[in-house]
Amino acid sequence: MIPTLAWTPEGVRFIDQTRLPLEESYVLAANYEQVADVIVTMVVRGAPAIGVSAAYGVALGALRTKAKTTEEFAPEFERVCARLAGTRPTAVNLFWAIDRMKRVFANLQVAGATLAQVLEKLLAEAHAMYEEDIAACKTMGAYGGALLPQEGGVLTHCNAGALATCGYGTALGVIRSAVEQGKKIHVFADETRPFLQGARLTAWELMADGIGTTVICDNMAASLMKAGRIQAVVVGSDRIAANGDVANKIGTYNVAILAKEHGIPFYVAAPWSTVDMATATGEEIPIEERPHVEVTHHGGKQMTPNGVGICNPAFDVTPAKYVTAIVTERGVLRAPYADSLKQMDLAG
Amino acid sequence: MIPTLAWTPEGVRFIDQTRLPLEESYVLAANYEQVADVIVTMVVRGAPAIGVSAAYGVALGALRTKAKTTEEFAPEFERVCARLAGTRPTAVNLFWAIDRMKRVFANLQVAGATLAQVLEKLLAEAHAMYEEDIAACKTMGAYGGALLPQEGGVLTHCNAGALATCGYGTALGVIRSAVEQGKKIHVFADETRPFLQGARLTAWELMADGIGTTVICDNMAASLMKAGRIQAVVVGSDRIAANGDVANKIGTYNVAILAKEHGIPFYVAAPWSTVDMATATGEEIPIEERPHVEVTHHGGKQMTPNGVGICNPAFDVTPAKYVTAIVTERGVLRAPYADSLKQMDLAG
Repeated sequence: MIPTLAWTPEGVRFIDQTRLPLEESYVLAANYEQVADVIVTMVVRGAPAIGVSAAYGVALGALRTKAKTTEEFAPEFERVCARLAGTRPTAVNLFWAIDRMKRVFANLQVAGATLAQVLEKLLAEAHAMYEEDIAACKTMGAYGGALLPQEGGVLTHCNAGALATCGYGTALGVIRSAVEQGKKIHVFADETRPFLQGARLTAWELMADGIGTTVICDNMAASLMKAGRIQAVVVGSDRIAANGDVANKIGTYNVAILAKEHGIPFYVAAPWSTVDMATATGEEIPIEERPHVEVTHHGGKQMTPNGVGICNPAFDVTPAKYVTAIVTERGVLRAPYADSLKQMDLAG
Repeated sequence: MIPTLAWTPEGVRFIDQTRLPLEESYVLAANYEQVADVIVTMVVRGAPAIGVSAAYGVALGALRTKAKTTEEFAPEFERVCARLAGTRPTAVNLFWAIDRMKRVFANLQVAGATLAQVLEKLLAEAHAMYEEDIAACKTMGAYGGALLPQEGGVLTHCNAGALATCGYGTALGVIRSAVEQGKKIHVFADETRPFLQGARLTAWELMADGIGTTVICDNMAASLMKAGRIQAVVVGSDRIAANGDVANKIGTYNVAILAKEHGIPFYVAAPWSTVDMATATGEEIPIEERPHVEVTHHGGKQMTPNGVGICNPAFDVTPAKYVTAIVTERGVLRAPYADSLKQMDLAG
């Protein structure tokens, strides 16, 4: 079991994803501000993992408060939620998780719960989200694993693995499940510039599981596709709009176009909490611009000339028309996504 | 004038392209083995520059020989040519340049030239190729510059600039010429993993010329295209097959597909010496696999887990159907390329 994040008596323990794969070290976030920092600095990343991290952050806010009553704690609770919600803008799971904690708190306020009861229930909710996340990954893995070919190369972009979730992974859960189903899968992992989640994290966790993996530069995918070495693409998502447009790590849209051009299926695997029915299309999804040093420096060493312009959007949006299927724990969705997402949302 | 390579009394002086942009240092190749090393280690790179470097390498072979007569030198001449031809397999300009030197030598042998005459003529031929290369870049720049929009973003991949030639550049020559024609061009430079020719070299030389440049990761091109920020793509080439298939830096094929999908013209700029009428299609072009350390390490620091698989093809092939036009010093070619290349080859 890869220990993405874990609740401990001292706070939330995170594996430091900025230091993998060559160094396996841990960071303890003892209060909600430290959880926020850990999300901003990408010690923890991946939409589902960020959501659960924020839920634990809210629980930590309740644990560390100096307030004496639920009423006294209420404005502080709002500040805790606002700080955590302000860490990263694109992954909707963050807001989904915080909203869920807010609903729990609102119900407890109405019921006249004590602060001790509030703390207990908030922590229980975070624990529930943690367990649900792993279960969702396992279920979508089974659904998605069935879609992969009996044998072949599967390309993935970024890390939508155990490290992006509480365990097992979304896109990598699909691959793990296919392998467990006896399929012979070789993974091609886009290194995923600039943060190298593929080269560092996907490669690390798949090797730990003994799944054959080849790291490639992001710009090598098309030639591998043309050479017949890739039979399917599976990626995760940070937000799926109501029309099926998919926000995911920068470069996903590139891969989707290349897959279409080569007649290769392009699958998106994500828990239902990634679906944002309140966002009509991908155009409305805010795209985070990350610090330029991620692009200018490689391994701590500056590679670009001083003063040159830099772009560093952390995500892009893949229009629904490129998506062969969306795999969730509720089932596999197909186009037209406006209809299939709406139906599954109502069936909830 | 960017000093890619220059003949000096001591040998060939190269700017060290592995150390740019933060360090401007020079390497002197005093004999042909050192020229071969400089090509292998990519101190000098870029198809046209490699060709002229090899020609000077052949001349250096004649300069440093201990042979006393042309006849005595002949087998050594063959060894010099073979060593230089064995440095890199994809760029046809290398073989074109060596073949040209071989023809000069063969004619001199037939004419009964002295070794001093051989040296003089070989060096004169290399100098001629150097001057022709710059002239070709200027001419194709004028042809290609006319194709670019009056105003807009132009994406380029790798470095097909002054540093890839004896001066001015092929793809960057087209951009320079457009700017000289008064067009308002902003360049988006793919950083071009793994060797970062875009981030390091294209950015450096365009900034030196005051041309606005933004470096992006290779995987950001599609989202910029969708956002309407790129109006044209211009790249260089390492070999153009008789049917118009284009070998160029790995990732070029990706860019070509993305351009097609967004309705953006995709131009290839290369001297006629890059056209290889003896190679029927791109399938026949040998693709160099480079050392894996280029992919695993960033700024000297290992980023991938030990033992993971790595791909590092240095080039890919873009099928002719993606190419809007091929710009050479002989003029602009359009599809069907099998016909237009043949015609222009015969017109010679």
